Order: sequence, then C-alpha cells, then structure tokens
Amino acid sequence: MTLETFFNTLIPSLESELQHQVARLDESRTRPFYEMLTYHMGWSGEGAGPRATGKRIRPLLLLLTTAACGAEWHPTLPAAAAVEFIHNFSLVHDDIQDQSEQRRGRLTVWKNWGKAHAINVGDALFILAHLSLLDLKARYSEELLTVEAIIDHTCLNLTRGQFLDMSYENQSGLTIKDYWPMVAGKTAALFSACTHIGAMLGGADDSTQEVYRAFGHYIGLAFQVHDDFLGIWGDSALTGKSTDSDLSTGKKSLPVLYGLEQAGVFAQRWVEGPITTNEIPLLAEQLTHEGAKTFTQDSRDKMTDLAVQSLRQANPMGEAGEALFDLAEQLSNRQS
Amino acid sequence: MTLETFFNTLIPSLESELQHQVARLDESRTRPFYEMLTYHMGWSGEGAGPRATGKRIRPLLLLLTTAACGAEWHPTLPAAAAVEFIHNFSLVHDDIQDQSEQRRGRLTVWKNWGKAHAINVGDALFILAHLSLLDLKARYSEELLTVEAIIDHTCLNLTRGQFLDMSYENQSGLTIKDYWPMVAGKTAALFSACTHIGAMLGGADDSTQEVYRAFGHYIGLAFQVHDDFLGIWGDSALTGKSTDSDLSTGKKSLPVLYGLEQAGVFAQRWVEGPITTNEIPLLAEQLTHEGAKTFTQDSRDKMTDLAVQSLRQANPMGEAGEALFDLAEQLSNRQS
Repeated sequence: MTLETFFNTLIPSLESELQHQVARLDESRTRPFYEMLTYHMGWSGEGAGPRATGKRIRPLLLLLTTAACGAEWHPTLPAAAAVEFIHNFSLVHDDIQDQSEQRRGRLTVWKNWGKAHAINVGDALFILAHLSLLDLKARYSEELLTVEAIIDHTCLNLTRGQFLDMSYENQSGLTIKDYWPMVAGKTAALFSACTHIGAMLGGADDSTQEVYRAFGHYIGLAFQVHDDFLGIWGDSALTGKSTDSDLSTGKKSLPVLYGLEQAGVFAQRWVEGPITTNEIPLLAEQLTHEGAKTFTQDSRDKMTDLAVQSLRQANPMGEAGEALFDLAEQLSNRQS
Repeated sequence: MTLETFFNTLIPSLESELQHQVARLDESRTRPFYEMLTYHMGWSGEGAGPRATGKRIRPLLLLLTTAACGAEWHPTLPAAAAVEFIHNFSLVHDDIQDQSEQRRGRLTVWKNWGKAHAINVGDALFILAHLSLLDLKARYSEELLTVEAIIDHTCLNLTRGQFLDMSYENQSGLTIKDYWPMVAGKTAALFSACTHIGAMLGGADDSTQEVYRAFGHYIGLAFQVHDDFLGIWGDSALTGKSTDSDLSTGKKSLPVLYGLEQAGVFAQRWVEGPITTNEIPLLAEQLTHEGAKTFTQDSRDKMTDLAVQSLRQANPMGEAGEALFDLAEQLSNRQS
C-alpha cells in the first residue's frame, strides 16, 4: 500500500472523527459560531473542500506511527483529532497575530468575522482538542494521562516558540542559533508529540517511543526549514502576491538569518526597512548568491536524514512503515 | 473562623500554588513572556499586589466546598489553581475582544504588550490550567478524568457564552430571556464547576455534588447580575470614567435589556446611538424610574436565595460551611 492509498483510507475516518468532535458546538442558539469552526476546518463556506482542509499531516503521522507499531490505528482517532485541533487552534490565533488575510486559499477567520470572534474560535478548537483526548478513556485508560501531559507540554512549548517568533521581529543581532529553539517550539514540538503518542498508543516500548519521538522532531524541523525555503524560492513567493514572500513580511526565517549573518549586500538592504514587491526576485537571487539557498537546502536535508535515521532505529512495520519513510521524503520535496 | 480568617489562610497557599505552576515558563530565553503572565496574575510590574491579583473567588469557592464536605482542602490546590487560570485566560482574551484598557486598576496585557502577545499569554494561562489539573494525579487518580471533563465542558460553555455576548452587541430585538443562556455560559458555568469539583474532591456523594453544583450556578448568576447592577449604579459607573459605565460601552446587561423591553424613554435614547459621558447619570436615573433597578436587585436576590437554598440542602460542615454562606451574602453586597 502506498502513502496515497493509506491517505485515502485514513483521511475519511479522520474527517468523520473531527466532525463528530466539532458537532459538540452544533446548537441552534450558537449556530453561527459552529459555522465559523466548520469554515476554518474546511468543511463549509466558500471554497470548502480538500484544499481548504489542509494536509492533515500531523494526525496522519500519529495514525501511521500506531499502525507501524503493529497496532490498529482506528481506536487512536480521538488522539489524531486532538493534534489536528491543536494545530488549527494555533493557526487561527497565528493568523490574527501575523495579520494574515489568507489561509489555504481562503479568507482567514479573523478576516471574515473579526478578531474578537477569531480569538474565541481558536479557544474553542483548543478545548475540542482536550475533549477529544478524553474519548481515549475507554480504550487507553492507562496511557491517557501521559498523552495529556505530552499534549499540554507541547502546547506550552508552542506558546514559547510563538513568543520567540514574535519578539524576533523587532530584534536585531539575531543569528542562526536563535532559529532552532524558536522552530523547535513552534513546529517540531507538535510533530514529535504526534509520533510519540502514536508509538505509545501503538504499544511500543519506551526506547522505541523515544526514537519515534525523535523522528517526529526532526521531521518537524525539516518541514519548517522547507517551509522557509518555499517562503523565498517557492513559486508563489517569487511570482505570487508579495505577501507570499517572507522577504516582504519581514519574517526572520532561516535563509534570512543566514543572509543577515553574512553581513553582505542582502543584510545591508534588509536593515534599511521594508522590502517592496519589485525588489523580491532580485533580493532572492542575492540571497542565493550569498549561499543562503544551498545552506537552507542542506539544513533541510540534514534534518530529513536525521529523521530517517531515527525512523530506521524504530524499525517500523509493514506498509505503514514504508508510508512513514515516503512521508519523510515527500515533506521535503513538496512544492507548497 | 470567619470568611476573612479563611481567606487569610487559603490565599497564601493558593498564591504559592499558582506561582509554582506559572514557574513552568520561567526560563531565561523567554523571560519577558513569563513576566507578562506574572504581571497579569498581579505579582509583578507597576501596581502589583492584592488589588492587582483580583479576588480569587473561584478557587476560594472550590477550596471552601472541599473543606465544607469535611475533607482537607490542601490537596485540591492544583484544582483551585486550574479554575483561577481558566478565569484569567478568559479575562486576558476578553480584554482584547472588548478593547478594555484597564483591569483591576492597571493596564491590560494587550494594552501593555500588544494584542498578538496578549493572545499568546491567554493561551499559556489556559494550558497552565490543564497542566495544574494533571498534578491531581497522585492523590485523585479516580476523580481526575471526571474533573477534566467538567473543566473542558465548562470552557466550551465559556466560548458559547462569549460568542453570544459578542453577537448581542449588534443585535436588536433582544429580551431578558436572551440574557440567561449568555451569562450561564460566560459566568455561571465556571462557578458551578468550582463547587462541583470541590464537592467531588471532598468525597461528597452524587446528590450532594449536584446541590453544590447548583449552589455554584446560582451564585455565579447572582454575581453576574450584581456586576451588571454595579455597571450602571455602582459608584465608579456613576462618577468614574465613562468606560466604567455599561451605558457607554453599549453592553447588553440585564438592566439595559429590561429597559429595552419597556420600550420607553430609555429604549428610545438607546437605539439612537452611543451614549455620552454627560448623559450617564440622567439615563441611569431614567432606568431606575422605569423599574430596571428594582428588577435587577430582585433578580440578584432571587438568585442568591436559590444559591442559599441549594447550599442548605448540601448541609455544609463546620466553619467552612459558614464561610460559604457568608461568601454567598458578600458577593451580592460588594461595592466593586
């Protein structure tokens, strides 16, 4: 079974589970609130459909890990739903914080209903994550509290990473070594929680859980570095709206931090202030010239290698195991 | 022992517990983030001290209920901390949503550090609530999952109430019957969770838990109605800054909804648009004249009576029981 076949089997079950959880808010008095959540999840409103739901990578990682431990993935669906809700809670709040008007090709929640409602939608998604976890009780009574602790510590790391990301915006003198603790919190923490929980619920022993956790951590770092790569050299960053390029949003991504460390032409231009749409292609080329593109690709490949090494140590079983190797590969080759 | 003596015994232990939980964020790299939380909790920054911490009524209710069931209150401190964090998470987000610049006599978190950081601070407080609950594990392993379910359902009700509150702002034709579901979610849900959890951890049987839960529910409603009373006829509403009066913020509080239902002079003025500072005293008098003041006081007293009746049924023990009766009384007589 290829990754795609797995995807086609798992995703419908996951979507049902997510919808079942969100239905807790489906009441006549608060129907518009419920609809804000179903809109964000990609199920309703203009542009609803597979593109609007996002890739559901995190729950997929969790379910595949459980399966690769030789266990049934179906009973872990509430945990998979929980990590997807955590991810989406952070997206809804993140979009307000970054003032991003678009998400997955549609208007963001705050752009549609205002910031006050969007804060509340994010809060509700966060609560649904916790309510989903409680549905693990019947089957995983022994593991549940540990799973909750992993999720809550992960979320605390998310807020730490988010704090660093926001405070970096106005900070000068940052170097590449400031990058890793930020993305470890912002991105890798949730990825590693997915594989850790997947392995635990799959019945893996402690050392196997640990290598799966490391696999998720490195996959998360590779994923974020590749995101940073696409934020400058991806098609839409180079040719799309200026807001698609990290060069114009001022984000301190890995290539930008690398460029700043070189203290060359790029760094000189950066400190002069906001970069206009016209300048983007040339400045991206300048970054390439100064070595940032190669450095970013190398960093991503190094993280992917570390992920694959960890995964090998975990000795994942059967077709789910192969699918995990495929996933690691694909996340570093995606175009968007 | 009077309520005050109890207060002086419980509060220092509670503050230690809260500080112990917030210390999870005390790291050199994210120190300013940690300090945003300690500022909001009332422990640091300008104006830190007892007034800045707030009254800690919710955890106090929880601890007193446990004690009134004849059990030790000390082991339930993590649960008391959790409900206080839930309350504070909602305050931090609420202040952004309402654009309130002052809280407990000081600048709000968003006013100090911007909305993006304030969203993140609220999120962190919410996570700390869940991490605190996990600390109940050793002593209350049997009750823990039920406590978590109560908290999570309460939080979902909070977001529902918050949604209604925000959507009422632009809705006309609202009546008093729209008021109760909104405040049930916004305020009473957390109060009833406090007494419910306090009774459960105090070892009360199901029916006693239920009457304690009802006690908290009615106390919460009385508390909110009295808040609405003070928002129009309280000293600072009548004589303070115009933002202290619910008449100028446009909030659909109970007296306002009552006034709108009368369709008299008050209602006529209300629909014409924002009320200026100068108009506040006369319009408050007009509301009194139309019966809103008496109606609000009667509603509050009815809720307090229902609370006291429930509390009597619970047959609370000893001095903690007396303190609960005192608390019910005082919450409806406070001046701020």
